[in-house]
Amino acid sequence: METSKQGLVVSAHSADFVWRAGGAIALYAKRGWTMTVVCLSFGERGESAKLWKQPGMTMARVKEDRRREAERAAEILGANIRFMDLGDYPLRVSDEALFQLADIYRELRPEFVLTHSQRDPYNFDHPLATHVAQEARVIAQAHGHEPDTPVLGAPPVFLFEPHQPEQCEWKPQVLLDISEVWEKKRQAFELMAAQEHLWEYYTRVALQRGAQASRNSDRKIRYAEAYQRVFPQVTEELA
Amino acid sequence: METSKQGLVVSAHSADFVWRAGGAIALYAKRGWTMTVVCLSFGERGESAKLWKQPGMTMARVKEDRRREAERAAEILGANIRFMDLGDYPLRVSDEALFQLADIYRELRPEFVLTHSQRDPYNFDHPLATHVAQEARVIAQAHGHEPDTPVLGAPPVFLFEPHQPEQCEWKPQVLLDISEVWEKKRQAFELMAAQEHLWEYYTRVALQRGAQASRNSDRKIRYAEAYQRVFPQVTEELA
Amino acid sequence: METSKQGLVVSAHSADFVWRAGGAIALYAKRGWTMTVVCLSFGERGESAKLWKQPGMTMARVKEDRRREAERAAEILGANIRFMDLGDYPLRVSDEALFQLADIYRELRPEFVLTHSQRDPYNFDHPLATHVAQEARVIAQAHGHEPDTPVLGAPPVFLFEPHQPEQCEWKPQVLLDISEVWEKKRQAFELMAAQEHLWEYYTRVALQRGAQASRNSDRKIRYAEAYQRVFPQVTEELA
Amino acid sequence: METSKQGLVVSAHSADFVWRAGGAIALYAKRGWTMTVVCLSFGERGESAKLWKQPGMTMARVKEDRRREAERAAEILGANIRFMDLGDYPLRVSDEALFQLADIYRELRPEFVLTHSQRDPYNFDHPLATHVAQEARVIAQAHGHEPDTPVLGAPPVFLFEPHQPEQCEWKPQVLLDISEVWEKKRQAFELMAAQEHLWEYYTRVALQRGAQASRNSDRKIRYAEAYQRVFPQVTEELA
Amino acid sequence: METSKQGLVVSAHSADFVWRAGGAIALYAKRGWTMTVVCLSFGERGESAKLWKQPGMTMARVKEDRRREAERAAEILGANIRFMDLGDYPLRVSDEALFQLADIYRELRPEFVLTHSQRDPYNFDHPLATHVAQEARVIAQAHGHEPDTPVLGAPPVFLFEPHQPEQCEWKPQVLLDISEVWEKKRQAFELMAAQEHLWEYYTRVALQRGAQASRNSDRKIRYAEAYQRVFPQVTEELA
Amino acid sequence: METSKQGLVVSAHSADFVWRAGGAIALYAKRGWTMTVVCLSFGERGESAKLWKQPGMTMARVKEDRRREAERAAEILGANIRFMDLGDYPLRVSDEALFQLADIYRELRPEFVLTHSQRDPYNFDHPLATHVAQEARVIAQAHGHEPDTPVLGAPPVFLFEPHQPEQCEWKPQVLLDISEVWEKKRQAFELMAAQEHLWEYYTRVALQRGAQASRNSDRKIRYAEAYQRVFPQVTEELA
Repeated sequence: METSKQGLVVSAHSADFVWRAGGAIALYAKRGWTMTVVCLSFGERGESAKLWKQPGMTMARVKEDRRREAERAAEILGANIRFMDLGDYPLRVSDEALFQLADIYRELRPEFVLTHSQRDPYNFDHPLATHVAQEARVIAQAHGHEPDTPVLGAPPVFLFEPHQPEQCEWKPQVLLDISEVWEKKRQAFELMAAQEHLWEYYTRVALQRGAQASRNSDRKIRYAEAYQRVFPQVTEELA
Repeated sequence: METSKQGLVVSAHSADFVWRAGGAIALYAKRGWTMTVVCLSFGERGESAKLWKQPGMTMARVKEDRRREAERAAEILGANIRFMDLGDYPLRVSDEALFQLADIYRELRPEFVLTHSQRDPYNFDHPLATHVAQEARVIAQAHGHEPDTPVLGAPPVFLFEPHQPEQCEWKPQVLLDISEVWEKKRQAFELMAAQEHLWEYYTRVALQRGAQASRNSDRKIRYAEAYQRVFPQVTEELA
Repeated sequence: METSKQGLVVSAHSADFVWRAGGAIALYAKRGWTMTVVCLSFGERGESAKLWKQPGMTMARVKEDRRREAERAAEILGANIRFMDLGDYPLRVSDEALFQLADIYRELRPEFVLTHSQRDPYNFDHPLATHVAQEARVIAQAHGHEPDTPVLGAPPVFLFEPHQPEQCEWKPQVLLDISEVWEKKRQAFELMAAQEHLWEYYTRVALQRGAQASRNSDRKIRYAEAYQRVFPQVTEELA
Repeated sequence: METSKQGLVVSAHSADFVWRAGGAIALYAKRGWTMTVVCLSFGERGESAKLWKQPGMTMARVKEDRRREAERAAEILGANIRFMDLGDYPLRVSDEALFQLADIYRELRPEFVLTHSQRDPYNFDHPLATHVAQEARVIAQAHGHEPDTPVLGAPPVFLFEPHQPEQCEWKPQVLLDISEVWEKKRQAFELMAAQEHLWEYYTRVALQRGAQASRNSDRKIRYAEAYQRVFPQVTEELA
Repeated sequence: METSKQGLVVSAHSADFVWRAGGAIALYAKRGWTMTVVCLSFGERGESAKLWKQPGMTMARVKEDRRREAERAAEILGANIRFMDLGDYPLRVSDEALFQLADIYRELRPEFVLTHSQRDPYNFDHPLATHVAQEARVIAQAHGHEPDTPVLGAPPVFLFEPHQPEQCEWKPQVLLDISEVWEKKRQAFELMAAQEHLWEYYTRVALQRGAQASRNSDRKIRYAEAYQRVFPQVTEELA
Repeated sequence: METSKQGLVVSAHSADFVWRAGGAIALYAKRGWTMTVVCLSFGERGESAKLWKQPGMTMARVKEDRRREAERAAEILGANIRFMDLGDYPLRVSDEALFQLADIYRELRPEFVLTHSQRDPYNFDHPLATHVAQEARVIAQAHGHEPDTPVLGAPPVFLFEPHQPEQCEWKPQVLLDISEVWEKKRQAFELMAAQEHLWEYYTRVALQRGAQASRNSDRKIRYAEAYQRVFPQVTEELA
């Protein structure tokens, strides 16, 4: 039996992958890939405002709620999900955690990696997650790191769209048509009860990127997700 | 009978397309595409040093020599070639010439366009060629330009590698494997008797880009050409 | 009687000012300013697709339709409008036209100027309009240009949002709350029958910039327009 | 009794705030605001050359001298001052110190924040101070950080001018007229006996920025301070 | 008799070379070089405010005054000067003028070229002068341009400091010690009676660049001029 | 007896200095300078693929092999070499190690420093080495750091060429002619048995930079190394 292909998503907080890469995840899951989301934290301090407004809320309960929400979103999208519980606002990543992430790279051997933008003045956990996702990738490529495990190849890294793209030195270089899985993404959105104000925001993002994808291709594309590349594309086609 | 797909190359001088895009041209020609090269000038003043060292040389003879060389190179690569004879050092493009180029876009309806980098402090004809190639593309998209001809779609534009890439604000974003047609490119090179010093230079460029393509993909790629994109890539694949 | 303050908008085509600066225009008109829009062309070739699909359409009729539409939009927004009819796709600006624009600067003595982004790979008329708007401004500042008319001061220039902002090296540096005049902007939009597909697009743009304005200020802002500055802001307030 | 408005200055070393933001501090203090300067270190190792040339100098005495000097400068400017004594050359900031700074944000709830440039190849403490000032601001916005204290809003951050601006990827985007408090800034300068060579340097900086402010506004401005914005300006005025 | 070495300065207006490159000119003149300044225009419209305030002033008299002033300044600095009288605000350069400038390159065969920054939102003549200075240089390198004259080599191009450097995307990469000729530069300044307000401004620029040169070198340098390079430095020394 | 002049090279791994700066090292050694290479790690995990393919390989043996290789390469080039053994993939630098490096600066008092590019998405140890090399330099300049040792001056820092230059935001600003020591560099290369695939790659880099050096100078230069400057060049010559 052939194993399915793998895709890896490194998400700083437990909901980032839904807003930013939910379309890509659902699309590849639908194609039979194994998509794995690694959440470095639950976003328990910085991205759970609504929960903290409930009386008597505790850190443990916030984490539990966020975990459950993320698990259900992953399920809708068709992805596996893992939590590293490294804390947020600020996220802090020890070398031990870095090596764990490197091990995940070697275990999954993903064809591509999705993560955050390299800068974000509104959120310092996001660029740190990207740094860690990339440093772990390089460690997994090192022959002297756990020499008995085969080294990683060179999977391309795609940076998903931050909340305020122009402030983050991020540029849409790849527009991925997600129309056929849009309903799944929207459904996964709507699980994020704590962030209802973002539903319409990210629906509009998808529509704008869709319109731009149409304009850049002559195809009729309704919903799209935008990504920036870290590495040059190696290809046999100019398209 | 189905018509073959089209690719368009806009070259400031009569040899640029060989050094910079000969691999892509040969590759697509081999795949059955119709590749058309438009040379805005013959490079008669600025890129024919060796010819001008011959006693009694005249502008007409230089142009004729450069034209013949370019035609033979195009033939080897498998491309059609057209000359607009707009002059070089400096290249000057009237609106009439711009409209001719727009008409070529509408005639060919290319799937992609290859042209120069957007900046080049060593050569002012190159960025002008790029500007014109892009402005003509946009005019060909306008419904009010010759309203009886169908408008152009949105073919992607790829910028080929300038002589000193870092000085030209140009970045390799796409690495195209040209190994299978390398011999043709080299053969077309060697017709450029006037620029023999560049043969080894551009062979090394192809080898370096090949090594980088390998490094960015885990594939074994010997020769590559590098391109920068003007527009975002619209795609259904993250690869 | 005191004269009202003046604002100047330099628009490449006859509808650009509506999509991109309609909110600022309506806002300042409401405050009693005299807002003047200068349309360098009617957008007759490049931005009138729907009209050209009508049988028997002529250039004269397209221009007339576009002019009427623009006049009505200006009226709704509360602005004066002037047309220079310089052609589009490509826009071409003679020195004579440049001096006319410089004269408009001296006549109006605007407190600020609104125009296009400095780059746009999808549209070469837009950056040319910006270049001309800025060069005319500098000429109007020269004591030796028509020495009998008082020279212009140094009105700030704000660049309005292009269609695909990240591709245009444009960054939102100023977010202007236009909520109180949104209905007027939308109404002016809807006159652009030829570009109905853009109504929703630019409504979403206004909502996204509004959400970002809220996020950057703690105020509740529903609709906003974004601008980039050309010159440093001179101020007595850090806000 | 109404509380006065608050402004926060995060200074890597004990004198930075005087050279770089003394005008803004004095201006807002004069307007009745409470201006608070937080010095992350005393600059005891890296910015006290003159003191270290005295025989028998000790770290404790350098710190004490620098503290006194800074306190007197703050007094002249009309500001409160706090010292975190985190060390310099290199400055090192623990998470504990980061949280203290976040608490200061919540305590003061400043309307704006002033800090260093984001890059400085001459001084690694400065960009670290900026990073920390920004990360603490984001933590103070997190509902899950000390959930019983009200969260911070979104005060704008202004980056003051580094010693060699062009080398620091810093650009003057805001020119603040400080003419009316210039004498106070100069007086505060002159307390910095250890850095007398900088008095004239920073007087010239203020004159140059003043001349530029005049040039960009038609107003007569003698002394100015320049700032770069981190976030877009949210405004109701295009000025 | 050995001919002296040549340096070429391309100045948009008749006084630019004094403020921006007067130190370099005087320094090399003192070393026995032949320094030639080419003024593309007299700055008669845009940089002669004081003259235009005199009653009955005419264009011819302004040009004559500006020419005389520039000739005397060149004399003090020890340079030759030529005027092309191409007009200013806006400067316009025909291909004929471009070829004249190319001929000057071939005639002088300069070791280096000094000209303006590549961008300047305050002054559109400056970047045009730079473009022309560079395009003429490339034409002079072309073997087919006037084939009977020996082609030009590859003299480095240095861009002198614009009025508001950070707004012009200009960066000081080379700091030239001009202390030993400062008095000459100041003397040449003071001939510019029409621009007395700039005397102190550019004295401060020289002092700031001097202080920065000291800081970057451990040498004691009082006055400096700053330049940006267009091309990489080719060298045998890492200094 | 006069002491020779000093040059310092900070290399992340034990072979980087050979590929990237071997020419500069050999050139200055030949001129009688004392060149010192500091290797922060042996590259034992990330750059020793070939060794790890040998059965029974251990970390200790890899380090020992890499050390020996580096020592022999340094000997051929004429340099001293020191190892800090800080680990690689990931390199981690404690403050203690940072201070050791600062002490080396004070001990050697180098005229210049060579180190890596500031960014490298393929290798996170390289930019960290650069950061540390620069931070140590600044600490060594601080009067309060070990006040009994004389402080360091301001040696220029040159960044050597990364493997894929355009991906590393690195630009060749200085082209150093290394033709006369090329054989030594090649010889030192060939000691790197573990990285034989890089021999031809870096020979081509040297040839390309040589061709570019020729093109930028009119001199005939066969092999060159390229560097980027961190600080402005302070000079008495425009060349």
